[in-house]
Amino acid sequence: MRQAGRYLPEYREVRTRAGDFLTMCRTPEIAAEVTLQPIRRFGLDAAIVFSDILTPLVPAGIELDFAPAPHIANPLRTPADLDRLRFPEPWSGTEFLSETLALVREALAPETALIGFCGAPWTLGTYLVEGSTSRSFSLAKAFAHHHPGVFDALVNRLADAMAAYLRSQVEAGAQAVQVFDSWIGALGAEDARRWALGPARRLLEKIGDLGVPRIYFANGGAHLLHDMRDMPCEVIGLDWRADLAMATRALPDHALQGNLDPGVLMGPDDAIRARTLAMVAAAPRRGYIANLGHGVTPDVPVRAVSTFVETIQRYRYE
Amino acid sequence: MRQAGRYLPEYREVRTRAGDFLTMCRTPEIAAEVTLQPIRRFGLDAAIVFSDILTPLVPAGIELDFAPAPHIANPLRTPADLDRLRFPEPWSGTEFLSETLALVREALAPETALIGFCGAPWTLGTYLVEGSTSRSFSLAKAFAHHHPGVFDALVNRLADAMAAYLRSQVEAGAQAVQVFDSWIGALGAEDARRWALGPARRLLEKIGDLGVPRIYFANGGAHLLHDMRDMPCEVIGLDWRADLAMATRALPDHALQGNLDPGVLMGPDDAIRARTLAMVAAAPRRGYIANLGHGVTPDVPVRAVSTFVETIQRYRYE
Repeated sequence: MRQAGRYLPEYREVRTRAGDFLTMCRTPEIAAEVTLQPIRRFGLDAAIVFSDILTPLVPAGIELDFAPAPHIANPLRTPADLDRLRFPEPWSGTEFLSETLALVREALAPETALIGFCGAPWTLGTYLVEGSTSRSFSLAKAFAHHHPGVFDALVNRLADAMAAYLRSQVEAGAQAVQVFDSWIGALGAEDARRWALGPARRLLEKIGDLGVPRIYFANGGAHLLHDMRDMPCEVIGLDWRADLAMATRALPDHALQGNLDPGVLMGPDDAIRARTLAMVAAAPRRGYIANLGHGVTPDVPVRAVSTFVETIQRYRYE
Repeated sequence: MRQAGRYLPEYREVRTRAGDFLTMCRTPEIAAEVTLQPIRRFGLDAAIVFSDILTPLVPAGIELDFAPAPHIANPLRTPADLDRLRFPEPWSGTEFLSETLALVREALAPETALIGFCGAPWTLGTYLVEGSTSRSFSLAKAFAHHHPGVFDALVNRLADAMAAYLRSQVEAGAQAVQVFDSWIGALGAEDARRWALGPARRLLEKIGDLGVPRIYFANGGAHLLHDMRDMPCEVIGLDWRADLAMATRALPDHALQGNLDPGVLMGPDDAIRARTLAMVAAAPRRGYIANLGHGVTPDVPVRAVSTFVETIQRYRYE
């Protein structure tokens, strides 16, 4: 959750100059500049490249815009529509991101890691079917329940494509990768295992040879802790609904990442410090990335993010 | 989740005639007619009165409209704003609902139960502060973290007012009451205990003398099962993210209600039947209300609801 955003005045300034969000993602100089903003301001230990999970769908023929919410003009509503989705093999079409990664890697201090990322198959599948963010995911679930085998094929194709996409990011300089399953929280355990965790596992396995840490972020996945025990990744990222102490027990083979409620950053400094210290105290000592449980919302004051980061940076295990 | 809605053609017909949603809620003949629609069509074992959780805020001075999403013109953004919130004592201002309940009770067969309801303190508190539905609940969380004592007072006042409101519903004919905590899923466990479960407990305790079953619906509360163990109510309602077998163990003193994913109703009949039977099989035999895990979405076919209800009605424990 280190990505720059509207809470930073320097981001808003670049955004105003650059115009729309997709142009920012696709212009390496701008994306690199914005990637570096939180590092300059907060001295974070890692930078995550500035991008959006939906941009790698464009090379597959998806018509995407942000106005300002993500919108797909040609969603996949029937099994036949899947023929329209053609991912390039070998992977291509996101050279702008590779250039961005190279620029950022060059600018970063050697000790600051660079993180690449992609959307998880289920999460991308919901956008492909719904055409936008959804509250109920009715269309995606209708597709999955009416055509379960076809939906399996869709999420598996997304897994393979995203594995190739992450590979291109590591080749360009990413030293860790994060897979965002933003909408897994819409699924009960049975459906999550089939349509989200299964294809995410396929994706993560396919990049096992890259030798970089793999982070799987299960947003809203507090009810799925036990189902993630064998995920082929080094780190499980959790949002603030998950109890960190419980997750430490349920996921003994993983490092954990997270999970302060970004809503706490709307509060005063003393509350931010107290909650951050409580979070770190509950975290597993075997491996832990202190972080928010979700992205910084636009209305969070920069001061609050500083307080959060400084509290972590000053923390020492006894 | 028995409330009429846009998925029913007979509801859309009444809605077109009646005009806006609030007028429907406030006109007893219309609200009673709409309450009875799902009973006539599906032969359900209980009717829930047609209303909205926000209507009892109007007698306290809240300016509410639905256009079409709920919107409050005078939200509470500072501690001083709380002075503007004045609930009538003794309770008054929702006589239209009492009339509706009386009309419905008269029309219902004696064996069909009538359910009254209200919003839970936390959920109502988010609307009062945000002024609308939210994704991040930043404003409500900002208020709570900056003024925790004042926010405690707000949710406690809401608990007391909703207890009086439910009392008026039971006096008018409701034979069970449901408390909807629609947005408890936005909170981690620590905040949920203080701002949602605590005041909900206060509300539920205050109506313990009414002698009617109390249902507490914790939407998105799968991470809070153990925190709800001592809730002073007879039934805990769960959404589809909660594992029913796990909840049966975690909540040994409660009957359970739920929890099929309404998204399953977007699928074919065989999937609906299979998932419904699996749900009932996992449910506690000590007390269980078969239900959806959330309301029926507008795009669900009526056929699918019939299949769901018939599968339950035909089910017999071995």
